[in-house]
Amino acid sequence: MPEFRGFAPPYTVSGRSALIPKPPWHYSGDLLTVEYRTDPERVRALLPDDVGPAPEDPGAVALVWADWQSCSDSFEELLDPARSQYKEAFVVVRCEFEGTVYSRCVLIWVNTDFAIARGLHQGYPKKLGSIHMTRPMPYGKAAPRVGVGGRFGATLAAYDHRLASARIEITGPSETNGFVNALPMLHHRQVRGIERDAGWALDEVVTMSGYDGEAGPAWAARAELELHDSPWDELASALPVREIIGGYYRQVGTSWNGGTTLAHR
Amino acid sequence: MPEFRGFAPPYTVSGRSALIPKPPWHYSGDLLTVEYRTDPERVRALLPDDVGPAPEDPGAVALVWADWQSCSDSFEELLDPARSQYKEAFVVVRCEFEGTVYSRCVLIWVNTDFAIARGLHQGYPKKLGSIHMTRPMPYGKAAPRVGVGGRFGATLAAYDHRLASARIEITGPSETNGFVNALPMLHHRQVRGIERDAGWALDEVVTMSGYDGEAGPAWAARAELELHDSPWDELASALPVREIIGGYYRQVGTSWNGGTTLAHR
Amino acid sequence: MPEFRGFAPPYTVSGRSALIPKPPWHYSGDLLTVEYRTDPERVRALLPDDVGPAPEDPGAVALVWADWQSCSDSFEELLDPARSQYKEAFVVVRCEFEGTVYSRCVLIWVNTDFAIARGLHQGYPKKLGSIHMTRPMPYGKAAPRVGVGGRFGATLAAYDHRLASARIEITGPSETNGFVNALPMLHHRQVRGIERDAGWALDEVVTMSGYDGEAGPAWAARAELELHDSPWDELASALPVREIIGGYYRQVGTSWNGGTTLAHR
Amino acid sequence: MPEFRGFAPPYTVSGRSALIPKPPWHYSGDLLTVEYRTDPERVRALLPDDVGPAPEDPGAVALVWADWQSCSDSFEELLDPARSQYKEAFVVVRCEFEGTVYSRCVLIWVNTDFAIARGLHQGYPKKLGSIHMTRPMPYGKAAPRVGVGGRFGATLAAYDHRLASARIEITGPSETNGFVNALPMLHHRQVRGIERDAGWALDEVVTMSGYDGEAGPAWAARAELELHDSPWDELASALPVREIIGGYYRQVGTSWNGGTTLAHR
Repeated sequence: MPEFRGFAPPYTVSGRSALIPKPPWHYSGDLLTVEYRTDPERVRALLPDDVGPAPEDPGAVALVWADWQSCSDSFEELLDPARSQYKEAFVVVRCEFEGTVYSRCVLIWVNTDFAIARGLHQGYPKKLGSIHMTRPMPYGKAAPRVGVGGRFGATLAAYDHRLASARIEITGPSETNGFVNALPMLHHRQVRGIERDAGWALDEVVTMSGYDGEAGPAWAARAELELHDSPWDELASALPVREIIGGYYRQVGTSWNGGTTLAHR
Repeated sequence: MPEFRGFAPPYTVSGRSALIPKPPWHYSGDLLTVEYRTDPERVRALLPDDVGPAPEDPGAVALVWADWQSCSDSFEELLDPARSQYKEAFVVVRCEFEGTVYSRCVLIWVNTDFAIARGLHQGYPKKLGSIHMTRPMPYGKAAPRVGVGGRFGATLAAYDHRLASARIEITGPSETNGFVNALPMLHHRQVRGIERDAGWALDEVVTMSGYDGEAGPAWAARAELELHDSPWDELASALPVREIIGGYYRQVGTSWNGGTTLAHR
Repeated sequence: MPEFRGFAPPYTVSGRSALIPKPPWHYSGDLLTVEYRTDPERVRALLPDDVGPAPEDPGAVALVWADWQSCSDSFEELLDPARSQYKEAFVVVRCEFEGTVYSRCVLIWVNTDFAIARGLHQGYPKKLGSIHMTRPMPYGKAAPRVGVGGRFGATLAAYDHRLASARIEITGPSETNGFVNALPMLHHRQVRGIERDAGWALDEVVTMSGYDGEAGPAWAARAELELHDSPWDELASALPVREIIGGYYRQVGTSWNGGTTLAHR
Repeated sequence: MPEFRGFAPPYTVSGRSALIPKPPWHYSGDLLTVEYRTDPERVRALLPDDVGPAPEDPGAVALVWADWQSCSDSFEELLDPARSQYKEAFVVVRCEFEGTVYSRCVLIWVNTDFAIARGLHQGYPKKLGSIHMTRPMPYGKAAPRVGVGGRFGATLAAYDHRLASARIEITGPSETNGFVNALPMLHHRQVRGIERDAGWALDEVVTMSGYDGEAGPAWAARAELELHDSPWDELASALPVREIIGGYYRQVGTSWNGGTTLAHR
């Protein structure tokens, strides 16, 4: 009997129907980041009970917009761009697990199914959203350049409710692209049992990082950020903006090929 | 420390951000079904190795379009219809597991994130698609009535490729809404480990059925069905139409509240 | 030389590529209406200078959601429902022109291109929006029935901003489906010249009505309505809700086949 | 009485609700072009009777994909990118009018309403479509660079039917970005009267060009192109590919501020 191929369902003999192909997965993209401080107890309230707050600046939050192109090791997705392009907006905090400080994504919206499926594998709490980011372009009056004075907007909506709007203006070079989304990720992968009121059928703590990263210069930016809630999404109420730390803009490339299980719970 | 609520990530104290709420889940909808026969070995090729073909008519396939409204026990989703309406197209075959014959969904496309998340919980191999179905309406010339002579179209596309187009014309009452999608479902719930080339972190066989079903009369229909492949989806090649069995149309209501684990593999 | 066919561009010999076919156009659909009063001067501010306010109740506004299926006299669109289904939300006021009182659409959002093109022909100020309406269904717990106690929600968003949310609960039969959207329409059809700062290349006043209307019973409803503005749409600020008149729900069918030019300006 | 502002309906005193603002309109974007030859009589069949074929190479066609950012002279759309970004795919031929050779757009699909409205003003036969183009990015493995060896895909679908797929690979510098879409445009602006079977209420021939163009280097490319028809769109049948002329890739900026009426018919 022939074996199934494909990294995620649906499984077929060819593997061609699979929602996502086998890693490694490669990414090229633009990152627009706004870092801010919220009340540390709000961050704490989004962490599971086996995870503690970061020892320093525990109320720091990064809201990151990313405009990605991605593909498998076959690179064939790149020539059917409906299969390779997507955007996402995600909220990262830091946390401590067994004595190590990690980054952790606590909220994330993407706009394709393959991005949802990769995220589920990696423990990201993905939902669909409508995400827009100003694109830098090299010519004409209708696009910023990546450099001092460049102005970019970024927006997020879900279920026809606007959840976030950001505006940044690049002010100069930066040594980093921020510190909140800069550590290996710590995620829980949890699947409920199928029985009514069942406990977890899968309950793991994992960590992961990209590899083969390359990047252009990091830029610092003045940033404005507006958050909203909807009946279906807590953003303004979950992590209200108390103080803007700063904005960042960077064009990057990275690859991903698996992570490490830290605990089975 | 307060506990998280919400049935699927993201988890918060209120549970309001969760992609899906706790079951029970309630559904009202219109079902347009085309049953046909393909080569039995094609069905076999989509079944995992612990599952066998149905002993009778093993090449029977149902392609079902559904136009759903759905909600939790709070019913609040119904008044923000972006949160309650979705469409799906799915392919069902029958199979045998440990001596019992089941229905099994081998391919499925939906058009919302909450439908994806519910499907993942239930072992459906969900992807996003663009799905359309002619709606019956009681007045005017631009809609069929549910009854003899009513003509309905249904279409499915994914990644901007048309995958299926069906047309039915109701010919008279039917005793059933078809036999392929009529049994309890048998699904595998499988999650890969996070490590590179890892085996399954979760590998289960589950079964489930709806409850509190109610339905209008079932109608039989003449049916035409065209299937296509795309670079990312095998439908025409995976389950080619050899012989149309028949079409069906039925308006239904059902609820769901958990299933049963048959095996941990 | 063969002639072009098709009612709107692009024109080809077959006419098959035309964005819209030749009238008559047929419609079947569900209408959810909320009538309310705003300041009469706000209505006045949306009328061109050759049109006056309605002599009675000049601040009355109808916000109507419609879930349509539509087609040409060939009816072939009905079997490819991506080509026949659309939703719209539109704002109607009344006005007086040369001694006659008319209905007039001052704001409208639809979700397909063929609906935009038909509307442009008819003088509707159409934009794209994301529109949702609760559907009545005959079975199950996840849909209201059309009758006393039926609760329906309706929403409108554009450019990822929520602009309107309505909720109605049917309280009993009604003699009418409202009075604001009940008269022949009075619209201006205006096209600017292509030259910089040109005047109108076309400037007409037209009126039109449907024909062959049929409808189910009209229902009265308790109604709640929330309006919002966005940077690109004035709704809450243009026509603020001062007093709810009432809600209505009705399923209808109608056809359209041309109007009458009242004035060339 | 205050005057209306706004370049297209809906008109309000502020002009803020208008679907499009007053020109000038500014554009920055990426252009992927495939030029090919079809049967000259096919081009002829898409030209109105007052327009003749180009005297040289009358069967030449350009299929152009464009990934645009655009804005008004306020530039404010750039910071709410849902209001400034769009993609289009359009088919250009050449034609002769009163002794001058022009470019002419005979088919075009875009993915926003403001692009439709600008196009209607300019005489483009716009419809909505789903359009994707591989984006060049400066870092990582998941994006081509703009230069020799860069491979780009581009796709077009409408009503859930794939209409065109192109792939190009940059082979070297080019002196031009092609010759078919290189001349001032000649378009007809036609509006039917509102009466049943009415003639044209507006029937004009206009020409227009951009200004303040700037551009990066033009690149030549090897090109593959697949065209399809759907029940609602003639592309493969209207302008079949007989011979690929070549591919081009160029990043550009341009502005637009009105055209010239050549004839009132």
